[in-house]
Amino acid sequence: MTYTAPTGEFTFILEHLVGLNRVTETERFADATPDMAAAILSEAGKMCEDKLAPLQRSGDLHPARLENGVVRTSPGFAEGYRAVAEGGWVGMAADPEYGGLGLPMALATGVNEMMASACLSLQLAPLMSQGQIEALEHHASDAIKSIYLPKLISGEWNGTMNLTEPQAGSDVGALRSRAEPVGDGTYKITGQKIYISWGDNDFTDNTCHLVLARLADGAPGTKGISLFLVPKYIPDAARNPGRANALRVISLEHKLGLHGSPTAVMEYDGAIGWLVGQEHGGMAAMFTMMNNARLGVGVQGIGVAEGAYQHALAYARDRVQGRNNEPGGSILGHPDVRRMLLEMKADIFAARSIALGCSVSADMASATGEQFWKDRAAFLTPIAKAFGTDVGISAAQTGIQVHGGMGVIEETGAAQFVRDGRVLAIYEGTNGIQAMDLVGRKLMDGGRTAGKILDDIETGAETARATNPRLAKRVWNAAETLRETTEWMVAQERMDDRFAGAVPYLRAFARVLGAHFHLRAATSAGPGPRTELARFYIRRMLPEYSWLLTQAREGAGGLYANRTEDL
Amino acid sequence: MTYTAPTGEFTFILEHLVGLNRVTETERFADATPDMAAAILSEAGKMCEDKLAPLQRSGDLHPARLENGVVRTSPGFAEGYRAVAEGGWVGMAADPEYGGLGLPMALATGVNEMMASACLSLQLAPLMSQGQIEALEHHASDAIKSIYLPKLISGEWNGTMNLTEPQAGSDVGALRSRAEPVGDGTYKITGQKIYISWGDNDFTDNTCHLVLARLADGAPGTKGISLFLVPKYIPDAARNPGRANALRVISLEHKLGLHGSPTAVMEYDGAIGWLVGQEHGGMAAMFTMMNNARLGVGVQGIGVAEGAYQHALAYARDRVQGRNNEPGGSILGHPDVRRMLLEMKADIFAARSIALGCSVSADMASATGEQFWKDRAAFLTPIAKAFGTDVGISAAQTGIQVHGGMGVIEETGAAQFVRDGRVLAIYEGTNGIQAMDLVGRKLMDGGRTAGKILDDIETGAETARATNPRLAKRVWNAAETLRETTEWMVAQERMDDRFAGAVPYLRAFARVLGAHFHLRAATSAGPGPRTELARFYIRRMLPEYSWLLTQAREGAGGLYANRTEDL
Repeated sequence: MTYTAPTGEFTFILEHLVGLNRVTETERFADATPDMAAAILSEAGKMCEDKLAPLQRSGDLHPARLENGVVRTSPGFAEGYRAVAEGGWVGMAADPEYGGLGLPMALATGVNEMMASACLSLQLAPLMSQGQIEALEHHASDAIKSIYLPKLISGEWNGTMNLTEPQAGSDVGALRSRAEPVGDGTYKITGQKIYISWGDNDFTDNTCHLVLARLADGAPGTKGISLFLVPKYIPDAARNPGRANALRVISLEHKLGLHGSPTAVMEYDGAIGWLVGQEHGGMAAMFTMMNNARLGVGVQGIGVAEGAYQHALAYARDRVQGRNNEPGGSILGHPDVRRMLLEMKADIFAARSIALGCSVSADMASATGEQFWKDRAAFLTPIAKAFGTDVGISAAQTGIQVHGGMGVIEETGAAQFVRDGRVLAIYEGTNGIQAMDLVGRKLMDGGRTAGKILDDIETGAETARATNPRLAKRVWNAAETLRETTEWMVAQERMDDRFAGAVPYLRAFARVLGAHFHLRAATSAGPGPRTELARFYIRRMLPEYSWLLTQAREGAGGLYANRTEDL
Repeated sequence: MTYTAPTGEFTFILEHLVGLNRVTETERFADATPDMAAAILSEAGKMCEDKLAPLQRSGDLHPARLENGVVRTSPGFAEGYRAVAEGGWVGMAADPEYGGLGLPMALATGVNEMMASACLSLQLAPLMSQGQIEALEHHASDAIKSIYLPKLISGEWNGTMNLTEPQAGSDVGALRSRAEPVGDGTYKITGQKIYISWGDNDFTDNTCHLVLARLADGAPGTKGISLFLVPKYIPDAARNPGRANALRVISLEHKLGLHGSPTAVMEYDGAIGWLVGQEHGGMAAMFTMMNNARLGVGVQGIGVAEGAYQHALAYARDRVQGRNNEPGGSILGHPDVRRMLLEMKADIFAARSIALGCSVSADMASATGEQFWKDRAAFLTPIAKAFGTDVGISAAQTGIQVHGGMGVIEETGAAQFVRDGRVLAIYEGTNGIQAMDLVGRKLMDGGRTAGKILDDIETGAETARATNPRLAKRVWNAAETLRETTEWMVAQERMDDRFAGAVPYLRAFARVLGAHFHLRAATSAGPGPRTELARFYIRRMLPEYSWLLTQAREGAGGLYANRTEDL
């Protein structure tokens, strides 16, 4: 498995398309100059190429396993994790006060994508820690922060999220885990949690669980849920891991992919925890963590897509088959093989630009506190998550197809991208849930935020008219149709009518945003490769929006006219 | 793993949509009355439910393996295969003169689909034998037929196809295997073949390989290839397996799925073979086998989709999550879950109707010898193959998504459909090759055959106008746009311009054909479930055609404007 970090792509998108300069102009991120960004991406990229990429197959072939209650990780993962931690990549976006690098999300997103391409199952460990770090920064007491943040940021300890229970998946409010005040400021946590990524390992000194549970006086549903920090080992007075807490890994799941990442069933049996945020205020704290993680998962999808693309391209360059125009006769000379690779490449560019654009909005929100940027980041997050992961899955599938018969032979590595990437459309909120969030909560402002983004797209198209009139017209028309559908969505009072079209609406929004970025790339770079790729995307892939928006406006009636007993 | 045979669906489609009655009216298939069809489907369905479905997980968990040169099959597969053979299902479409049931393909297709749903990896064994039987019926000498057909049809022996070599995949003509006349009418075959499904087993008495190889005087490319029958054991005078032939299994592949099906690398070291067809006429003989197999693989895809659908529906009915309108609160009450299941169901109906329509054309061709039916079967075969397998893959993916987190836990079984089904878009000619066949060879008549099918679709829409005017109009418009694109295709003299749009063109043709059958179902059944499903398909899924045809007409220019060095 080899991997070449696409640092030039990040640099181009950050500088020319999504406005990293605006982020650099803020006081908070003044250090994130183009030179610094290039150096960070280059250093992280090298680490991914040299240290992580060799672990990709190893993790798949030698899954993490549970031995007498202890998780044994895949060969090389301890060293790989150490390289991530020592590079500062766990805490790259974290507060420098506690040892973080204080980088903007825009850069962290690039680094996370590269780590995900190189070895997705290992990268999931720092991603989980990053979410926990952000939740603690925003919601924990200073005492908790001072104990935990330095350890999490340095990577000595790692963090997990504990939301799901067997009966409480997408419906988090149905959880049954209980919390009971001890009287000394701590709580006893009891319950079972499932799907806990990196619930344990054998290379960090401690594993810190953020656990959602309900106090005795907590209301039913999400409003009565509180968030607790529950460490595997309770820190002693010297802030070192002390006595073992009353929690354990019951089992690890046997999964389609991500074999290197242990997915635990966790049992808490009166384990000691500390409240994070307010009593019954767990969902707010959890959402901080989840927003970060949702973008992070979208970026994992892009990482999978990039890995699959590089893999398929390398195969296609080498594989000679059939008469065709390509010198040497590689299968790149077959139009349909070329179509597949271009679809992957164009989709990756679109999804990556969306994720980096979302990151810049998040950075601007945290640097300026302005509602405009908060709203924009919140709007783009479900799109970045769902579209990024859908692109990951589709590119991985296309990557197999490019390989032909070799694609399903495991030694080739193409199939692993499909297996590893599949869960991305499910965890951190299924892509259906993301779409419901978009047409529900994110359109609650009457479509104002969506409208501003569409204004930007149309303005961009008008600017591009001088150099690429035909492409610009297509993008403008698509944005206008999307605007009409957005108005239709906002006008629906029965939420089910919105939900019935939520997934195609989200995808259409991503398609149009992708076209916007491709068009801007063409305008910015002038005639040449970026314009040709933009032309491919806008002429062949963008038109999907029309079909998607037709579906988006159908409403729920037809879904229920097909009766349950007739399914 | 449970499975319920959808026999009512087959009966409805055969009787009301694709005209089984026409087949029954021929002398050859006069026995295939509706009663007989129902009895056949019911008996085969019961066998699939009782004997094959329990093997699905077993094959996955306990892959076939090679032990000291001998293939050991998965637990229960020997008994499962015996049930198939004893039911007569291997040779169900074969000539009664040699012990076959002489059933029309239309019925065999239904039975094959059910076996594929129940246990895909086992079903691949009889499917391979069926292809060999058909090739021998058409191209072998009477002597060969009399020895081999009874054994293959009874299932005592099994058959394989040996086309691919490491350097000769889609480009069969690049093969290097050699054949040398011995002088006694036999040939010595030498070479290595890969991807040989069911290349060996431990439950049939003999395994018969159809092997493509080149005689010393064979021209380069496909024109110099001959086809040979090369048995594992050479039949003795009593037609029983005699001495071992000079061939062996070198290794079995470690695959993404289909673990129960041994995929062999075969070595022939001067193995004795018998010519099938003419010297240098191997491709013609192979195409007989492949045409049958291509339809059969498309049907495998539908089987995967049906299995995934039943699995996901059962999960959705049981899983309670979140507030919704469904009594009991199962996730079927969430619009997006319902959308996913309806997409699966509507796609399965479309793909199944196309495959059965193709089968009826094949039956009419073999019963009447009319060119009209030969052309129609030939035109529909690549569509049935590619669309059926694409539906298999997409339905399996959607099935995982319906399961949420449980979807990637292997014990659930949802992921196996994705793993098992993935190769279907690759073997028997990748779906890209199918599409090239459609826009190349199958439009060589200037679009006449396509035009006749489009005439039927438009006539159907005109008939439906009385009862379903709005749906009918949509179908008619789609057919007309497809006609225009077909004319555009025919007008392209540079084949690369056709090939650049081949995959979307094929899919658009399938979408429109699917709409035609849904509309006919609505018209035939009247208001109720079939009309509601048709409405869902025609309003939400059919509109994809417009996007697809936009791509189909783009030509190759844009693909090559993106230069190889810029990929």
